[in-house]
Amino acid sequence: MTKSDNGHIRYLFEPRSIAIVGASSDKSKIGYAVLKNIQSGGYKGKIYPVNPSGGDMAGIPVFRSILDIGEEIDVACITIPAKHVFGAISQCADRGVKHCIIITSGFSEVGNFEEEKRIVDYARSRGMRILGPNVFGVYSSQVSLNATFVSGNIPSGNLAMITQSGALGLTLVGQASVENIGLSAIVSVGNKSDIDESDLLTYLCDHETTHVILMYIEGVRDGEKFIQAVRNAARKKPVVVIKSGRSEKGARAAASHTGSLAGSDKVFDDVIRQCGALRAESTKEAFNWAMILAGNPLPKGGNTVIITNGGGAGVMAADACEKYGVSLYDDPQNLKSIFSSVIPAFGSTKNPIDITGQATAVDYTKAFDAALAEDNIHTVFGIYCESALSPSVDLGNIIEKNFLKYKSRGKLIVFSLFGGQQTADYVVSAKKRGIPVSDDVYETASSLGAMYRYKEYLDSPVDEVIDAAPDVPSITAIAAVVSTARNKGRFFLLAHEAQKIMNLAGIPIPRSIQAQTIKSTVEAANTIGYPVVMKVVSKDIIHKSDAGGIALNLENDGEVVNAYGAILRSCKTYAPQALIDGVDISEMVKPGTELIVGARIDQTFGPTIMIGLGGIYVEVMKDVSFRSLPVNAKDIIGMIKELHSYPLLLGVRGEKMKDVAAIVNVIIILGAILRHCEGISDIEINPLVVYEQGEGVRAVDIRIILEKNEKR
Amino acid sequence: MTKSDNGHIRYLFEPRSIAIVGASSDKSKIGYAVLKNIQSGGYKGKIYPVNPSGGDMAGIPVFRSILDIGEEIDVACITIPAKHVFGAISQCADRGVKHCIIITSGFSEVGNFEEEKRIVDYARSRGMRILGPNVFGVYSSQVSLNATFVSGNIPSGNLAMITQSGALGLTLVGQASVENIGLSAIVSVGNKSDIDESDLLTYLCDHETTHVILMYIEGVRDGEKFIQAVRNAARKKPVVVIKSGRSEKGARAAASHTGSLAGSDKVFDDVIRQCGALRAESTKEAFNWAMILAGNPLPKGGNTVIITNGGGAGVMAADACEKYGVSLYDDPQNLKSIFSSVIPAFGSTKNPIDITGQATAVDYTKAFDAALAEDNIHTVFGIYCESALSPSVDLGNIIEKNFLKYKSRGKLIVFSLFGGQQTADYVVSAKKRGIPVSDDVYETASSLGAMYRYKEYLDSPVDEVIDAAPDVPSITAIAAVVSTARNKGRFFLLAHEAQKIMNLAGIPIPRSIQAQTIKSTVEAANTIGYPVVMKVVSKDIIHKSDAGGIALNLENDGEVVNAYGAILRSCKTYAPQALIDGVDISEMVKPGTELIVGARIDQTFGPTIMIGLGGIYVEVMKDVSFRSLPVNAKDIIGMIKELHSYPLLLGVRGEKMKDVAAIVNVIIILGAILRHCEGISDIEINPLVVYEQGEGVRAVDIRIILEKNEKR
Repeated sequence: MTKSDNGHIRYLFEPRSIAIVGASSDKSKIGYAVLKNIQSGGYKGKIYPVNPSGGDMAGIPVFRSILDIGEEIDVACITIPAKHVFGAISQCADRGVKHCIIITSGFSEVGNFEEEKRIVDYARSRGMRILGPNVFGVYSSQVSLNATFVSGNIPSGNLAMITQSGALGLTLVGQASVENIGLSAIVSVGNKSDIDESDLLTYLCDHETTHVILMYIEGVRDGEKFIQAVRNAARKKPVVVIKSGRSEKGARAAASHTGSLAGSDKVFDDVIRQCGALRAESTKEAFNWAMILAGNPLPKGGNTVIITNGGGAGVMAADACEKYGVSLYDDPQNLKSIFSSVIPAFGSTKNPIDITGQATAVDYTKAFDAALAEDNIHTVFGIYCESALSPSVDLGNIIEKNFLKYKSRGKLIVFSLFGGQQTADYVVSAKKRGIPVSDDVYETASSLGAMYRYKEYLDSPVDEVIDAAPDVPSITAIAAVVSTARNKGRFFLLAHEAQKIMNLAGIPIPRSIQAQTIKSTVEAANTIGYPVVMKVVSKDIIHKSDAGGIALNLENDGEVVNAYGAILRSCKTYAPQALIDGVDISEMVKPGTELIVGARIDQTFGPTIMIGLGGIYVEVMKDVSFRSLPVNAKDIIGMIKELHSYPLLLGVRGEKMKDVAAIVNVIIILGAILRHCEGISDIEINPLVVYEQGEGVRAVDIRIILEKNEKR
Repeated sequence: MTKSDNGHIRYLFEPRSIAIVGASSDKSKIGYAVLKNIQSGGYKGKIYPVNPSGGDMAGIPVFRSILDIGEEIDVACITIPAKHVFGAISQCADRGVKHCIIITSGFSEVGNFEEEKRIVDYARSRGMRILGPNVFGVYSSQVSLNATFVSGNIPSGNLAMITQSGALGLTLVGQASVENIGLSAIVSVGNKSDIDESDLLTYLCDHETTHVILMYIEGVRDGEKFIQAVRNAARKKPVVVIKSGRSEKGARAAASHTGSLAGSDKVFDDVIRQCGALRAESTKEAFNWAMILAGNPLPKGGNTVIITNGGGAGVMAADACEKYGVSLYDDPQNLKSIFSSVIPAFGSTKNPIDITGQATAVDYTKAFDAALAEDNIHTVFGIYCESALSPSVDLGNIIEKNFLKYKSRGKLIVFSLFGGQQTADYVVSAKKRGIPVSDDVYETASSLGAMYRYKEYLDSPVDEVIDAAPDVPSITAIAAVVSTARNKGRFFLLAHEAQKIMNLAGIPIPRSIQAQTIKSTVEAANTIGYPVVMKVVSKDIIHKSDAGGIALNLENDGEVVNAYGAILRSCKTYAPQALIDGVDISEMVKPGTELIVGARIDQTFGPTIMIGLGGIYVEVMKDVSFRSLPVNAKDIIGMIKELHSYPLLLGVRGEKMKDVAAIVNVIIILGAILRHCEGISDIEINPLVVYEQGEGVRAVDIRIILEKNEKR
C-alpha cells in the first residue's frame, strides 16, 4: 500500500460528494434507506440521488444517470439489482468516481464469482476502488455520513468497527448503542473483492478520532498485507479482533459462509498476537475491551491490588486475575504498611485486601486512597458485595468518585459489583457512563488482562527484523538441489537431498561418511567418533534392516571391522544380485530434548515459522507455536517461551539448560531458506534433538516439500 | 450419616418452633432483623423471642431466658455477642433444643478456635447440632421461614443454595432475585463447626421442592463424607458447585479467609466431576446452569442443531458449542432433507442452518418445527440477529411460542439474541420468565454443555466399586516391610523395600537377581534374558558409576564374563577396603510409554489415585488426572481417557495400542494397598513404562511415603 493509496482511501471515509445509484422513494428499497440515512445523519457534502425516473427525492433533484452529474464524485453507493451493477460500475468509472460501495448482494457469496471478477477487474483497470459487494455500507463520524441501510441514529464516538459479516455488523451497531459506546466509523467489507480490512486499517490507524479499532473477521485473504496493516495500526492504537471459526466445525461453517479460507486457528491466534492485536472470544468481550481501552490510561506497571468487602468474592477475583494474566501485587510487608491503618483488625492486608462486610463508602475511599498514593500499585480491582450489614450506601461515592479521582491521576481502577436489583441497575447505568464496572469478576479481569497485554506490546521494543539470507553460493546450490528434484517430476526432496540442503545452510545433522573398504570404514568411524552406526549403501536394498544391513552402537575399531564383514556377508546372502556401493558410517545420535521446528508458506499468512514439542508428542500434545515472517529476535524467543514444554529447555530435574541459541539459529536459517530459496513451500525437522547449552542440536529427520507452482 | 441423623436435620429446615436468642427491638441489631424477617416471611410455627428485658416485641411475648420457654424448641437462632454464646448454648441444651444457628461471629474465623471448640464439644455431648458460627441463617420455603438477617422478600422456588461465604451468599440471594429465580432453601455454613455441606445435602437431595442445588465452597474439611453426599445427591438432582481458590493465589487467599484448606484445585475438579456435580466458574455461570437445569427437560440424545438468521453469529455459536462440549448434528444428507424445504435457496442446510437475514418469525417457526419433528435432533440452538432487513418482528413468536412448543414435546430449545436496545430488553424480560435466552453464544453454549454433562452422568451406569484387596499373607508381609522402616525411624521406604512391596502386590518391576560367582552371574543373566545390566553390590560403594561398578547392555555370556571381571577389578582399585557382596544382574528396561501413577491420602479427600504423563513431562505438561477411592472400572477408564496424552496409549504413528489393561490393574492394586495396608500415605511410580497390548508394564522407579501418625 503506497502513500498515495492511503490518501486515496481517505475519500471513502471523508467524501466531499456522494451518489446513490438506485436511490428510491419506495420505502421498502435499500436505495430509500441509504438516501434517508445520509440525509438524516447530517452529512454536509453533496448528495446526488440517481434513478432513471428522475424528478426529486426528499427535496433533492434526482439524476437519471450517473453520467448526468457534472461535478466530482468521491463515492457512489450502488443499490441496484446485481445484473445491472456492472453497467453502473462502468458509468461510474467513466465519471471518474473514486470509490464504489456495492451494497447489492448476489455475487461470489452465492457462487457468482465470474460477475464479481468482471466488475473488479474493470474497476481496477480504470483506477476505481470497490468496497463490497454484499455490504451494508459505510458510516463515518468525521463527516457525519451514514451511507448504510442501518436505521436509527448512530452515536458518534471513538470506536471504529470493521466487519466481514453484514448481519453481525448490524447487531454490533445495536450492541454499541445498548452499551452507549460511540462510534467513529463502521465499514462492512462483504466479499472483499477489492478493498479489504488492511486498506481500511491503513486509514483508521491515522484517524485521530478513532481510539480503538474493532474487527470481526471470518477469514483473511492476503495474510501478509493484513499482518503488516495490523502491526502498523497496533503500534498506534489498540486493535481488538474477533475471529470466528475457532473450532474445526466453526471454521468449516465460516468457509461455507464466506468463501474465504479460515486457515488454522492456532496460526491465526499466534500471528495476530505477534502483530499486537488483542483477540476477543465473543462480541461481548470485544466491546468490554474496546470500552476500557478507549477511555482509560494504560497501567504504568504490573501490580494489581484487589480491594473487597467480601472474602469469597475476593478469592474469585484472584482466580479470575490469574486466568487472564493479571498479576497481583505480592509484597506482604508493604501491603501491610499501606493498608493496616485503613482497614479493621479482622480484615486482611494480604492481597485480596479484605476491608470486611462492615465497610462504608468512607472506608472504601480510604482504602482506595491508600492504594492510589502508592507508586508500587498500578491498578486497583474494587469489589463491592451488597449486604444488609453495609446499608445501602451511595454507590456513586464508592465507584464513580474514586474512578474519576484515579483517572485524573493517570491510574486505573475497575469494579465488580455483586448484589440485588439496586446494584444490578447501578452496573448498567455506570457502564453507560463509561465506568469499567461489571457484575462478574471474570468479565472485569478479562478487560484488565487486555489492558495489560496491550501495554506489554507497546512496551516491547520495535526490534530489527532478522533476515539472515544464506550466502549466494549456498542459495545457488540449494536452488540446484530443488530444480533437480523438480526436473525429475518430484514435489518433495529425498533424504539425502534434504541433508545436503541442511549442510549447505549450516544446520547440523548427524555426521555421516561413506566408505568402500575396511580401512576407510575404520578411518571414517574414527573421524566421526565412537559410538557409530553402520548401514549398507545399495540402491538395490530398500529394507536394510531385513537384509542385516545395519549395525548400531559400534564402539571401537574391532567392532567396526567385525560389523563390516557381517553386513557384507548377510547382504550378499539376502540379495545376491544387489550392487553394493559400500557402507555409510554415521554418528549415533545421543538422546536429547526432541523438538519440531519448521518453516512453511501458509495458505493465508504466507511465510511462517513453527516450533513445538517434537517426536511422538507433536500430534498428541499439540504444543506448538507459530510466527509470521519476517520476525525479530523477540518474536522467536517469544514463540519458544510460549510452549508449555518450555521448562524442558530450561532444564527440569537438575538437568542443565538446553542450547536455546542453537534452536533460534536453526529457526532463523529455516526462515531464510524459505524466503530466499524459491521453490520450497515447507521444511520440517522432527525431531530436532537439542543438547545442553553449547552442545548444539542435531536435525535428525528432515522433510522438504516443494511448491506446486514454480513462481509464488 | 445415619438415617436418624437425616431425620434429625429435617427440623433445621422445617422447624415447628423457633427461638431467637437476642431478639431485639433495636433496629440496628441482628436480633431485630431476624425476628422481623421470620414474622414477615409468613412462618406459621411458634416464635419465641428471648431477651433478658422481657416484655413483648411486635406483638409476641418475650421470654427472659430460654429456660422459661415451656414447649419443645426445634431451632434456636443465637444473635448475642460471642462471649455470651457458650452460656446460651448450654441453656439451649438444657431445654432440649435440636438445632442452634449461631449467627454471631468472632470465633475460628478470627482465630478464636478454642471458644468455638468448647461450644461444639459441649453441644455434641448433649446431642444438639450447631450451624455456624458466623452464618447469616437459614431460609426454607417449605415452612415459609426466613430465619436470616437478609432483608426483603425472598421469592420461593426450586433452587436451594448452600454457601460458605456469608457475604457472597447474601449477594447470591440478591442475584437470584434479579434473575427472578425462586429459592427453596438457603443456608450459610460459616465456620462449619458441626453441620457442614454434606449434612445439608443429605436433607436437600430428598427435598421434593428442591430441583437444583447450588453450592459455593471455599474448602472442604471431611472430603470422604463430602464425596459420598455429593454422589448421592447428584444421582437425584443436579448439583452445581462454585469453588473459589482455583488459582494458587486464590487458594492462598481462601485459606487465609476461612481457615479451611483449599487443597489442590485439580484434585477437587476431578473428584467433583467423578461425583456427578457440575462445577461452574463464576456465580453468573452457576445461576445460568441452575436456571436451565431447574426448568427444562434433559436432552434425549447428543445432536444439537444451530438455526440462525446470521452466518457470522452461527459460526461463533459453533465455536462456542465446541468449547463447551456440545456436539453439532453432522449428517449433511439428513440435514438437507429436513431443512431444504423450509429455508431459502441461498441459505445453508449445513449445521449451523442459515435461514438468512430475510427470515421472518414464520420462517423461524418453520425451521424450528422441522427440527422438532426430527427424532435425530435433540436440542436446537436458535440465534436471532436484529437487522434492518428483518423488520421488528414479534420476538415472542420466534422465541416464546417455540420454546413452549418444544417444552411440551420434551425437547429443549435455547436462544442467543444479538441486537440493539429492543432485543436487549427482550433478553432480560424473557430470562425472567424462565426462557433460556442470552445475548452471548458462549453463555448459552455453556448452559447447554452443563445439561449434556448432567445427562451423561445420569446415563452412566452405577458400577460396582472395585476393591481388590491384596490377599492376607501379602498384606501381612507388606505391613512387616512398613513397620521395619518405621521401627528404624524412617517415614519413607528404601528402593529395595519398595521393590519388595511391588513384588508382594504383583506389580511387575525390572527383574533382578544377585549373584556371587561368575557361574551364578551367567546363570542369572540367562534366567533374566539378554540384554542385561550388571551392578556391583556393596554397601561401601555409594557412587557405583564412579567406581566403574556398572555395565550396561550386556548381550551375551561372553560380555557378562568380561564385565564381571572388569567390575570387580575396578571397584577393588577404586575402594580397596570395600566389602563386595557380588553383583546384581537386572533386565535392561526396553523403552516404552512413560506414565506416572500413584495413590495417596489427600489431605482433603482422603484416598485418591492419580495417573499422568510420566518421566520428565510430569512437571512440565501437568497432564494428570485424579479420582477419589473407592472407584469403579468406569472411573479408572475415565481418568485415563481424560489425559491429553491418551492418544499415546492408543498408539500414534502406526504404533500398536498400549497395554491399558495392565495400567488399570496397577492403579487398582495401588488403591488397594493404600486402603488395606495401614501406615502408607503415598505411593508413586514414575516412570511406569508401558508396552504394547499384552506385553505389560514395568514399574521402574517407586517412591513410598509412610504416614506420620500410626493410625489414620
